[in-house]
Amino acid sequence: MGTARVVFDRWGDRYARRIASVRSSAVRDLFAAASMPDMISLSGGMPEVSRVPIAAVAQAASEAIMHEGAAALQYGSSEGREQIRTIIAELMAEIGVRLSPGEVVVTAGAQQALDLIAKAFIDPGDVIITEGPTYVGALQAFSAYQPDIRCIPMDDDGMRTDLLEEELKRLGPRGAKFIYTIPNFQNPAGVTMSPERRRRLLELAREYDIPVVEDDPYGRLRFEGGHMKPLRSLDDEVIYLGTFSKIFAPGLRLGWVTAPRPILAKILLVKQGADLCGSNFAQVTAERYFLGTRWRRVLQGLTATYSERRDAMLAALDEHFPPEARWTRPDGGFFVWVEMPPYVDCASMLAEAVEHGVTFVPGDGFYPDGRGRNCMRLAFCYAEPEKIAEGIRRLAEVLEDRLELYRAFIAAGAIEVEEGAA
Amino acid sequence: MGTARVVFDRWGDRYARRIASVRSSAVRDLFAAASMPDMISLSGGMPEVSRVPIAAVAQAASEAIMHEGAAALQYGSSEGREQIRTIIAELMAEIGVRLSPGEVVVTAGAQQALDLIAKAFIDPGDVIITEGPTYVGALQAFSAYQPDIRCIPMDDDGMRTDLLEEELKRLGPRGAKFIYTIPNFQNPAGVTMSPERRRRLLELAREYDIPVVEDDPYGRLRFEGGHMKPLRSLDDEVIYLGTFSKIFAPGLRLGWVTAPRPILAKILLVKQGADLCGSNFAQVTAERYFLGTRWRRVLQGLTATYSERRDAMLAALDEHFPPEARWTRPDGGFFVWVEMPPYVDCASMLAEAVEHGVTFVPGDGFYPDGRGRNCMRLAFCYAEPEKIAEGIRRLAEVLEDRLELYRAFIAAGAIEVEEGAA
Repeated sequence: MGTARVVFDRWGDRYARRIASVRSSAVRDLFAAASMPDMISLSGGMPEVSRVPIAAVAQAASEAIMHEGAAALQYGSSEGREQIRTIIAELMAEIGVRLSPGEVVVTAGAQQALDLIAKAFIDPGDVIITEGPTYVGALQAFSAYQPDIRCIPMDDDGMRTDLLEEELKRLGPRGAKFIYTIPNFQNPAGVTMSPERRRRLLELAREYDIPVVEDDPYGRLRFEGGHMKPLRSLDDEVIYLGTFSKIFAPGLRLGWVTAPRPILAKILLVKQGADLCGSNFAQVTAERYFLGTRWRRVLQGLTATYSERRDAMLAALDEHFPPEARWTRPDGGFFVWVEMPPYVDCASMLAEAVEHGVTFVPGDGFYPDGRGRNCMRLAFCYAEPEKIAEGIRRLAEVLEDRLELYRAFIAAGAIEVEEGAA
Repeated sequence: MGTARVVFDRWGDRYARRIASVRSSAVRDLFAAASMPDMISLSGGMPEVSRVPIAAVAQAASEAIMHEGAAALQYGSSEGREQIRTIIAELMAEIGVRLSPGEVVVTAGAQQALDLIAKAFIDPGDVIITEGPTYVGALQAFSAYQPDIRCIPMDDDGMRTDLLEEELKRLGPRGAKFIYTIPNFQNPAGVTMSPERRRRLLELAREYDIPVVEDDPYGRLRFEGGHMKPLRSLDDEVIYLGTFSKIFAPGLRLGWVTAPRPILAKILLVKQGADLCGSNFAQVTAERYFLGTRWRRVLQGLTATYSERRDAMLAALDEHFPPEARWTRPDGGFFVWVEMPPYVDCASMLAEAVEHGVTFVPGDGFYPDGRGRNCMRLAFCYAEPEKIAEGIRRLAEVLEDRLELYRAFIAAGAIEVEEGAA
């Protein structure tokens, strides 16, 4: 795309105001570096689709097309095929959510659902609440509608509902358009919201009359501990986003949203303008793939793979990372979040890391306001365990180089270290 | 979706202001009626995908997935795969447009391109210019960004550039964000812009420094007469939208946009927030389907089918429709546009038509402002010739019933008829 090339833009003063607030995803921009030879990518949140049996998918596609005939090639309904929405309702029932296929709209990945929800709810200047840090794609989707994003910090039990309450008190009833949360194995923090916090979040949302948007791409990728009930199973007014990207494959671009019927009608309305309808071709293939039980064994295999890689990353972090670093210990999902002392600028270390043959995502990509520069998101989903160990070793070298300098500054009194930090 | 059911919406005061200006597509709402038994649908612009060899598509999908392996299942680049963008560049070369794959972004049908362009350019209140009537999906996509839409009337040579010039004089230089046009077999009017008008439109766009958006879904579906050069072949600053929906199948949701590089970069930026990337799964299948020359024979067959149906519709209109009606005689595409005298309310006749077993789309769906109620769009793309003839006969009955009433009113002096009308 030559985004790196400087091209004079004679239309520069013609774009909508929103364009100024939309950023390119740092994660996307790293794709180029990630494909360099011998590069170890700890940046992209890409599923290990090589573990999905390719022949089974080819067969599912071929059989589905022959079986469905012209319907597979035609425009579909905007809400998606009844058949795949029935499968989605069954998947939801397995995690404790009872709903009918009529309460589901199929989207182009959960990402499209984020865009449609933002489009339906956000006027410029409207407040929305997210965790801080939060999913970079959500920030991208939301920022196009020019909201005022308030980030609530997390700890190992997820969003700090005490701080959420403080924010809601400041904003007052209906003071935000929605609260966006990723309760399971949060992207990028890797933490999971405790049952107590889930209940408290829903209480507060009801009290202040603010819709909750629950994004749950990783919920089924749990390595240990018991399944936690989704917010949607506790409160049927929660807007819930699911995706086939992590339980099947992202290449089909299939996700879904369920919401109270009036909200779903608005989502459907804006979806018509966005792409008319989803892909019948992808939907019939997924329907066929989810017949029988093979997909469950594949998903178990995927989860085992990610679990092993999580172990490799945590072991390597324990072994190689400097004492100044703290990191989360996720029970599932794709990501570990590393926090360095506030004086460490991880964003400025990325170029050096790439030179050392490893990529990560600097933390400021996961905040709307420049915070997080002292943090990094490390993805364990995509590299083999030995690669992860080597990648962490390389990254530790880069960190050590930088810390050596900072330690000298601190010893010289040039950097003040807050009590309790590091 | 139960959109017809009345559900109290406790979030009714919470949606973004844009929601008030977004309408449901009348075309989409007719889908339910269209599936009733013995119903003849002259409403939907659906390609006759049953003429696409289903086994060839199944084979293309299966082979492509086996050949591409995990890449077919993974997230892709936001701009789309290099391979399919190369095919698109070749397709564009065949219609006189030279460009590199790097100047193409793959979208979820041309509909997504409309949404992304609107998102990149339109602030609330901005003027945009379209033909009047124009594509209902474009109105849906644009209206979500709250523009002030100015419609330029057409005649048998397409957009009236003299009236465009008048509008541009009123607006002044850069007075509109873009001019949107469907030069070939316009949806819904069926007319094609003459070469003189194309040149004049581009002159005016340059003079007033306003980007032109050329939407060309039907360009290759020409039944007679010579191919007309797209605007993009005459001016490389034109933003051009293409689609695989009419030359292959809409079920894959594959379209594309080409634009000057700075604009393309903005389109790509907003696409990331909208769905991260398109479907690799659909792209690899289309790449395989467009190997060799079979697709050309299929497209020739489709075009012959549509041509025969156009003939059937025009013959039936000549035979059955009342003298008060006027209609266009398209050289390609999917649609005939019928105009009745201003006192005839076609929108109110739809329920009667459905009772008589035929559907059409009332003309007001193709205007942003309630105009067009005396018009109808009739699609000849989807019904068999005999069905079309029968559908037109049924529709003529409904019209005659209504006209009988109007004629009595006119005879009684209750309706004034303008000189020259009807």
